[in-house]
Amino acid sequence: MSTVPLVEYADASPEVRTIFDEIKQTRKVPDVNNFWKALANHPDLLKSVWTSLREVMQPGALDPLTKELLYVAVSITNKCEYCTHSHTAAAFAQGMTQAQYQELLAVVAIAHQTNALANGMRVPVDTQFLVESGK
Amino acid sequence: MSTVPLVEYADASPEVRTIFDEIKQTRKVPDVNNFWKALANHPDLLKSVWTSLREVMQPGALDPLTKELLYVAVSITNKCEYCTHSHTAAAFAQGMTQAQYQELLAVVAIAHQTNALANGMRVPVDTQFLVESGK
Amino acid sequence: MSTVPLVEYADASPEVRTIFDEIKQTRKVPDVNNFWKALANHPDLLKSVWTSLREVMQPGALDPLTKELLYVAVSITNKCEYCTHSHTAAAFAQGMTQAQYQELLAVVAIAHQTNALANGMRVPVDTQFLVESGK
Amino acid sequence: MSTVPLVEYADASPEVRTIFDEIKQTRKVPDVNNFWKALANHPDLLKSVWTSLREVMQPGALDPLTKELLYVAVSITNKCEYCTHSHTAAAFAQGMTQAQYQELLAVVAIAHQTNALANGMRVPVDTQFLVESGK
Amino acid sequence: MSTVPLVEYADASPEVRTIFDEIKQTRKVPDVNNFWKALANHPDLLKSVWTSLREVMQPGALDPLTKELLYVAVSITNKCEYCTHSHTAAAFAQGMTQAQYQELLAVVAIAHQTNALANGMRVPVDTQFLVESGK
Amino acid sequence: MSTVPLVEYADASPEVRTIFDEIKQTRKVPDVNNFWKALANHPDLLKSVWTSLREVMQPGALDPLTKELLYVAVSITNKCEYCTHSHTAAAFAQGMTQAQYQELLAVVAIAHQTNALANGMRVPVDTQFLVESGK
Repeated sequence: MSTVPLVEYADASPEVRTIFDEIKQTRKVPDVNNFWKALANHPDLLKSVWTSLREVMQPGALDPLTKELLYVAVSITNKCEYCTHSHTAAAFAQGMTQAQYQELLAVVAIAHQTNALANGMRVPVDTQFLVESGK
Repeated sequence: MSTVPLVEYADASPEVRTIFDEIKQTRKVPDVNNFWKALANHPDLLKSVWTSLREVMQPGALDPLTKELLYVAVSITNKCEYCTHSHTAAAFAQGMTQAQYQELLAVVAIAHQTNALANGMRVPVDTQFLVESGK
Repeated sequence: MSTVPLVEYADASPEVRTIFDEIKQTRKVPDVNNFWKALANHPDLLKSVWTSLREVMQPGALDPLTKELLYVAVSITNKCEYCTHSHTAAAFAQGMTQAQYQELLAVVAIAHQTNALANGMRVPVDTQFLVESGK
Repeated sequence: MSTVPLVEYADASPEVRTIFDEIKQTRKVPDVNNFWKALANHPDLLKSVWTSLREVMQPGALDPLTKELLYVAVSITNKCEYCTHSHTAAAFAQGMTQAQYQELLAVVAIAHQTNALANGMRVPVDTQFLVESGK
Repeated sequence: MSTVPLVEYADASPEVRTIFDEIKQTRKVPDVNNFWKALANHPDLLKSVWTSLREVMQPGALDPLTKELLYVAVSITNKCEYCTHSHTAAAFAQGMTQAQYQELLAVVAIAHQTNALANGMRVPVDTQFLVESGK
Repeated sequence: MSTVPLVEYADASPEVRTIFDEIKQTRKVPDVNNFWKALANHPDLLKSVWTSLREVMQPGALDPLTKELLYVAVSITNKCEYCTHSHTAAAFAQGMTQAQYQELLAVVAIAHQTNALANGMRVPVDTQFLVESGK
């Protein structure tokens, strides 16, 4: 059903197996998800995406659960069925409660509503937001 | 530049002024943002959006900063210039640090990358994600 | 297959049943759609979305069919499979003819085409559109 | 500011002038919008888009105002600044009232909200929607 | 599963059959895809879309494979499941190699990442890009 | 106007200067674009994005111009004003002709049109597309 074959561990090259092993160890899972099996058709891309993802999602100024919540919010907004399922499951695995999940959905939903209103009325950005916030 | 006039407090109906007052008191700001001045052309919609937003964004299972971070992530993904500016500013006002902001951007960006890959290869959702997570 | 269990009437809390009853009475249907059964996991959100939706979709300056056509157009553009199916069915139930449906599709499709061209060439907005239309 | 020069009537080829004349006569306007001046860099595309648009937007099973409202809804959802401005102005020119405009915004906004919820919870489409509606 | 019945050749009107014949001859296929069978419910739209598509996709300043690659990239970005499958298959039929496909995916994915960063930080367009490139 | 300050070379850390130097040398430009100056607020993200981008965009199974055309197509579809301007300029710098640009716009535009139709009618994917193309 995917546009590429899913590469199973048994059929993978040593290069791909090394990355599959890393994913399984990092995430403490017995097998990698279909996403990685699909990406394994392009070992360079597999390696680059996994390396970046591991780095970005590690604990930092934001904790892993908050990062996962953000991932779910973006995946919903980007209408990615695969990512919505896999990251919602990952968020629950990270300890997201049902109450947190429902508030996440409520925030995502109202943000869509006000995004549409601001885009629809082409509201000009308030001057005070146009100073560089980071300064 | 907007498709509707911006309604200033001095020109607002008593009904609109009541809501403007609530917004100013809740947010402890001297004036409401352009978004509300634009919405004020439709008092019912103004009231309904403000009432919902206040309820959704109040502290709950998720803290206000996390909710604001989610709002920024959705607004970026929905390409809403106004909302990206206003909610990024709101997140900084809620205490978001520069380090947190940069990690938020990194998560949003890599989520876009993997969303595109999963959508592009039409990766089938793993069976284990298809059980109802909430059960 | 959803990320939350679907709450059936028989298993619903009294609070949820009250809203399910309202939906069934308003829409004259024997059971509520899956959308409401999913939302019922979060009774506050269920109540708030239903209350807003009922108010927005009631006859006003725009008739119910026109509102439903707009809902279909937005749902297609937002790539929401569930909403495209349910609101297309709702529009047919409101009296949309096959000829109207096909013209709706034609308008939605050509709007996508010209939206892409205007975004692609970054056409500057004509000065006459930048006066506030609502004045 | 655009990625292509805007072609003015005085500088246009006879082929482009013919289409500009048609647009001005059909719409009873003294000059064509920037969109057409940008497209005029590619006369074949200009002709094809104009021909399709004129045909799609003519009165049919849906009246011209309803078609214009749908165009606004899609343009907002596609985040096209140019198209949102130009088609909102066109809808006002077709007789859209302020009350109708505000209801359009309310429908577009709540559709975004429920689209996000249905996409977020991955609600399965109800069986009754999966019969071919058109039969 | 679609919102309209799929029109088979045997049940099609002479008008629709003429276009189906053209599609089959142009593409050297024994039957038309479901997309055309769905569009056949609206013969005018079928004719107009087929005519435009044939013209746009013919060899020109860009070769047919490059055009097909662009079609895949847009379809992925627009989250169109049908179009992603059909145009990925069409690109393979046009000679796209596995290596080219994987590079296409890599470009599409990193473009999504940097698009999100530029939109998120609201980076101002460099002055040198704002001169009209086409001049 | 951006949400972060733009970091100029003179104010940059040695770590950032090293990457700015690499960008300038690789692209043979006297200064880096605003995108990189904004990213420089987060040196790790700057380094990671630049490293990935350089690798993805280098000549491979697809030539650099084709990759740039794909980047433009995705940026238009993602409604990224900054990226549309910068990558259209980059494509012209890579040798894109006006004729090629106009055909690119035509392909992107018709893809949006047919994407909307396939999404709108929820056309089921043809069985022959559901075999794994990559096998």
